[in-house]
Amino acid sequence: MMARLVMKFGGTSVADIDRIRNVARHVKREVDAGWEVAVVVSAMSGKTNELVAWTRAAAPMHDAREYDAVVASGEQVTSGLLAICLQEIGVNARSWQGWQIPIKTDNAHGAARILDIDGSKLIERLGEGQVAVIAGFQGLGPDNRIATLGRGGSDTSAVAIAAAIGAARCDIYTDVDGVYTTDPRIVPKAKRLDRVSHEEMLEMASLGAKVLQVRSVELAMVHGVRTFVRSSFDDPADPRLGDVDNPPGTLICDEDEIVEKQVVTGIAYSKDEAQISLREVADKPGVAAAVFVPLAEANINVDMIVQNVSEDGTTTDMTFTLPVADFERAMSELEKAKDKIGYAKVQGSRDLVKVSVIGIGMRSHAGVAASAFQALAAKGINIRAITTSEIKISILIDSAYTELAVRTLHSLYGLDAA
Amino acid sequence: MMARLVMKFGGTSVADIDRIRNVARHVKREVDAGWEVAVVVSAMSGKTNELVAWTRAAAPMHDAREYDAVVASGEQVTSGLLAICLQEIGVNARSWQGWQIPIKTDNAHGAARILDIDGSKLIERLGEGQVAVIAGFQGLGPDNRIATLGRGGSDTSAVAIAAAIGAARCDIYTDVDGVYTTDPRIVPKAKRLDRVSHEEMLEMASLGAKVLQVRSVELAMVHGVRTFVRSSFDDPADPRLGDVDNPPGTLICDEDEIVEKQVVTGIAYSKDEAQISLREVADKPGVAAAVFVPLAEANINVDMIVQNVSEDGTTTDMTFTLPVADFERAMSELEKAKDKIGYAKVQGSRDLVKVSVIGIGMRSHAGVAASAFQALAAKGINIRAITTSEIKISILIDSAYTELAVRTLHSLYGLDAA
Repeated sequence: MMARLVMKFGGTSVADIDRIRNVARHVKREVDAGWEVAVVVSAMSGKTNELVAWTRAAAPMHDAREYDAVVASGEQVTSGLLAICLQEIGVNARSWQGWQIPIKTDNAHGAARILDIDGSKLIERLGEGQVAVIAGFQGLGPDNRIATLGRGGSDTSAVAIAAAIGAARCDIYTDVDGVYTTDPRIVPKAKRLDRVSHEEMLEMASLGAKVLQVRSVELAMVHGVRTFVRSSFDDPADPRLGDVDNPPGTLICDEDEIVEKQVVTGIAYSKDEAQISLREVADKPGVAAAVFVPLAEANINVDMIVQNVSEDGTTTDMTFTLPVADFERAMSELEKAKDKIGYAKVQGSRDLVKVSVIGIGMRSHAGVAASAFQALAAKGINIRAITTSEIKISILIDSAYTELAVRTLHSLYGLDAA
Repeated sequence: MMARLVMKFGGTSVADIDRIRNVARHVKREVDAGWEVAVVVSAMSGKTNELVAWTRAAAPMHDAREYDAVVASGEQVTSGLLAICLQEIGVNARSWQGWQIPIKTDNAHGAARILDIDGSKLIERLGEGQVAVIAGFQGLGPDNRIATLGRGGSDTSAVAIAAAIGAARCDIYTDVDGVYTTDPRIVPKAKRLDRVSHEEMLEMASLGAKVLQVRSVELAMVHGVRTFVRSSFDDPADPRLGDVDNPPGTLICDEDEIVEKQVVTGIAYSKDEAQISLREVADKPGVAAAVFVPLAEANINVDMIVQNVSEDGTTTDMTFTLPVADFERAMSELEKAKDKIGYAKVQGSRDLVKVSVIGIGMRSHAGVAASAFQALAAKGINIRAITTSEIKISILIDSAYTELAVRTLHSLYGLDAA
């Protein structure tokens, strides 16, 4: 039995028929190399937006089940077109819709979760030498209706299918050729990482690295799916791309597959952050709930929360960050709740950035945070807030210092390419 | 139990969100009048062509099953959008894809025939007061894959669903407000017919009246479905449209529902006809097969066939008509088969038109054909070929005389509006 491979292509990789033909050549290369291949595709770029716009024009608030029927059609189209392009170059292939496999989801139409994938029919066809071209982003709800996984859900489809058919690897083709130590537009010396652990990738995805959807990384971590980020813009005929064991890209894998663990793997940053501080909040039980429940009810995602211990035991200052897009709404909610919360005044700053240092090696290395603070201070960068986890340090600073901070930390931890 | 109604809307009736909203208002009117309603929709106009063009660009010859997966997405989108628009104006509604009902078809992907429709789930939901919005043109093949019915198949879907749920009527909304005695662009005095028999409509549809697909009329005839042709461009709020028994339009029904039978019901014409004559063909068994088998194998549809009895029992002339688009190919096929057929020479004319007189009353009235020939001769119109059936006379003439011939026959049989 040959090993199975999942290949996933996003919207820009299937934007038109020429690009879909290019994808077919990538697939043929892997088939020729001996893999049994399942391909997961997104809608042609722009199509999902067009379909979503129609549902909104039909009614601003609309039935999520009907939204799913409309929007899932985009992936259906790509799956059929890619199957045709594969057949045209002599590759045995067929399209599969979510309901045909079936990919069973829960009932949360528009943002459904995959519950179960019956891989048996796929495995049978793959074994007969037929490539499976699977419409991503969609499944079948318990009501026998199409359910979509939410935006970017094709990554999640690909990882879930890889788990269901026991794929040796799940290749995510994107418009970048891997995961970098940081954004190469800011640090030209950024290096492509050969391997990243699931835990690190999860932090990077949550912190603004747009290579993979957070949900797909979680799923890959739970099921131990080896995910591989690589470029769909490479020439499919490039012989290096056919390397079965070591093609160009970044492997996201379990920590124990990473032999030489770096202390720090990468520097991420997340722009468009805002900060709100409540001054002289009563230091008593229930006050945090009084602040954050109204914000949650208004669908405002609060991120870093810092509360200092009060000097005198009566009042304290409370600071948190949030996306700048939610800033005005949050200020207005807090104004409305002023009497209930009880605070002296509210202050806010926009135009902030969160810079994060990520690495599983931090677990066994003390002093990583201290050296970061020292290096930033030496450059005159003021730190507004800090949060840390086992494998991550996040620092809130003024956005004007973004590039300086990222470059400083990138050099500090020895990530610059020679 | 309320009576059930099927309403079918074609591509121009659902061309954009505003038009779809208009359709929703037509549906609401019928729901308010007390009907249980199932709606069948086509793809938004232009969408099917776009999808077909993509499959062709992917590969000129392509897998019909993949074509079906791609092209059926157009109706899927419309069904979801109309369900949303209905809900928005307070009508309980949901979309149904062919595979959800299911509408079972044979395996002839791209031109499938409906084998069976399980109406039980639809009937149950209709009984609960929910409008069913059904994607037309599609069903589920025996291979569990989407199968489309061929172009214009949404009419067929509507009639088949009407039969499956026992609908009292199947309303086909189009861009005209009914079936006319002839083309009003040629004869301004053409009248809208209140009723037409299935047999007559079948002849009209076959002869170029583009109101209904031939296949849908056949199906309506077999199952006795009362089909009603009406306009989607009327104002949905017009109170005359809500008349349960007698709304404006044309009812296509069984002959016994037509009390006062006209001798002639309508005059149809079909442009872009060509004629081919083979001179001095050997008059022996098997010669007709030698002529028409190669044409059939080349997918050329031959229509009127006229063969004269030979004077001397050795050779004869053979004449037939065909669409002008197939003329060159037919001439080339006949050239190739010249030795096998054995004929002296081949002659052809393009630029012809077939004018047909249709009416179930002809069965019991002699002399209809004779009066037609007389009237055309009086206007100096030369008749090139004639074929007749029980309820139809078709006459082939030069296309320059189209309008004159149609107007002459329309007056002759008393069809001009007062």
